[in-house]
Amino acid sequence: MTKNVQVKLARRPSGWVTPDDFSIERADIPQPGPGDVIVRNTVLSLDPYMRGRMDDAASYAAPVGLGEVMVGGTIGEVVASENERFKVGDQVTGFLGWQLYACAPKGAGLSKIDTRLAPASAFLGVLGMPGVTAWIGTTRILQPQEGKVVLVSAASGAVGSVAGQIAKLKGANVVGIAGGAEKCAYAVDTLGFDACVDYKSGDLAKQLEAATPNGVDGLFENVGGEILEAAVRRFNPFARVALCGLISQYNETHPHGLDNLQALLTQRVMLQGFIVSDHLDLWLGAVKDLAGWYGAGQLKDRETFVDGIENAPAAFVALLRGEKFGKQLVRLT
Amino acid sequence: MTKNVQVKLARRPSGWVTPDDFSIERADIPQPGPGDVIVRNTVLSLDPYMRGRMDDAASYAAPVGLGEVMVGGTIGEVVASENERFKVGDQVTGFLGWQLYACAPKGAGLSKIDTRLAPASAFLGVLGMPGVTAWIGTTRILQPQEGKVVLVSAASGAVGSVAGQIAKLKGANVVGIAGGAEKCAYAVDTLGFDACVDYKSGDLAKQLEAATPNGVDGLFENVGGEILEAAVRRFNPFARVALCGLISQYNETHPHGLDNLQALLTQRVMLQGFIVSDHLDLWLGAVKDLAGWYGAGQLKDRETFVDGIENAPAAFVALLRGEKFGKQLVRLT
Repeated sequence: MTKNVQVKLARRPSGWVTPDDFSIERADIPQPGPGDVIVRNTVLSLDPYMRGRMDDAASYAAPVGLGEVMVGGTIGEVVASENERFKVGDQVTGFLGWQLYACAPKGAGLSKIDTRLAPASAFLGVLGMPGVTAWIGTTRILQPQEGKVVLVSAASGAVGSVAGQIAKLKGANVVGIAGGAEKCAYAVDTLGFDACVDYKSGDLAKQLEAATPNGVDGLFENVGGEILEAAVRRFNPFARVALCGLISQYNETHPHGLDNLQALLTQRVMLQGFIVSDHLDLWLGAVKDLAGWYGAGQLKDRETFVDGIENAPAAFVALLRGEKFGKQLVRLT
Repeated sequence: MTKNVQVKLARRPSGWVTPDDFSIERADIPQPGPGDVIVRNTVLSLDPYMRGRMDDAASYAAPVGLGEVMVGGTIGEVVASENERFKVGDQVTGFLGWQLYACAPKGAGLSKIDTRLAPASAFLGVLGMPGVTAWIGTTRILQPQEGKVVLVSAASGAVGSVAGQIAKLKGANVVGIAGGAEKCAYAVDTLGFDACVDYKSGDLAKQLEAATPNGVDGLFENVGGEILEAAVRRFNPFARVALCGLISQYNETHPHGLDNLQALLTQRVMLQGFIVSDHLDLWLGAVKDLAGWYGAGQLKDRETFVDGIENAPAAFVALLRGEKFGKQLVRLT
């Protein structure tokens, strides 16, 4: 008989996450109560925010408890339904976690997806949480305009790639920062960025200076640490920062913040930290924009799949180390 | 015959400013050309921003050149005028620098002051640049409201004292941070702050936690360093920061920025660096508000005078060290 397979948080990491911080367990497939929907997950999204949920620190969301299934966005197919909004065979997206089967109590958090717009997995990427995050940070915080320079760190990642493309669509000059020649070539050749700096190839400050001769007016920040320090040195007066992530610091026991805070004062910078889940009211409008651009071929995405839920922990560690390329997904079927 | 006396920048400081970084020189009293106004300065304002002008670093304003008169706001009396807008005997405020006599070419930057509203020196403090700075940071950036908690560092200083009083007038709960029991008592007893933490008396983080049981929604930041780190740990979601100054770091060769940048992300903080001179369009409206509150006895100020221009350098160093109390002024007559 088929069993559920679940990835649970086995212990809280100290510093770098390792696959040993997770446990892989078998369980019975859940049965629906009144109003419930049972989903067989087909794709699991891996995203940097998950690292924060592994810690027991105060944050915007509650941590995953020890022994609990890891949180995560999913695509799946309804296999049993006691809910009139969903029928067996519906393709849905939800937040059902690192597991093969899940129960959505009363169907909460589930949405049907329209696979005429894009392949199902895109609803975990360019048309999902990462895409909406990029849309909020660019259109609502950076507000890119013609003649302005927008810098995007983690430029080939799920969020950065969309942020940079939106800034281009709005007329800005867009410069990326990414790790390695392949990611940089992708940002320029496929995503249409004006330039991309490889932080792994020598003097970042010098490279960034050459790539931004007119300075930087907007920074979509996903990384932090030395990359942020270098970016700040390029700020023009009244620069804006959409602070979306600090992935370089999530596994540091003594994180590097920002030494050059002075620049935020002398350049009169506006910095806004943000989290997509504060802006659910904007979701539908964002997805409408994103789907329009995607359908018109103006928004490219790149997905990297690993196969099998048992490989999710190692793939997640690789994502945090910047070893992956594009949107990270786990194929569960 | 009377001579002018000028304080000039003799060398650029490395680290802490010392009086030896200045030279005191005699010069002829300037003569007016067509349209010019000659002013005998009576009061010189000392302000933290002057430290930045002593460095040769990129900033929002050009540095003072070596051998040039130090910049500074002044009150004075017109002693010669070739300009129909000013007559001999007019009381004026301007930006005429650390000197006894100055020429305002074409009267540029001079304004007559209305000493029916307040004593002349108030136009360098509560009704001048520091007051307008506080007004912009509170009303335009922090936007304090009833039920919200506003934290003000350098609470007894020229800017912080006004910022906290405005936040109180807007209904917020206001907590100060200042150095020493006397300054803290002044913030609470005279300025009407709800509480004030003495950063010199023991565990700042613990004291601040006790003083802000409901967290912090707005921070008017003048100091930086350890004081900022402690403040950030108290942030509520969606906290706002008016980044006005970083006085604790101006004389550091390796400034301490912000280690806990992560908190700006997880708490979705908006931080805005600002400089009063970007907002000259708001000046008149701000002074109108400030003069109204001042006239109604709702806005208190405290001035500390030193006598004689030759004592300006030492008084400036003391200001930067936090050894002074309230608005720092040099009486020139």
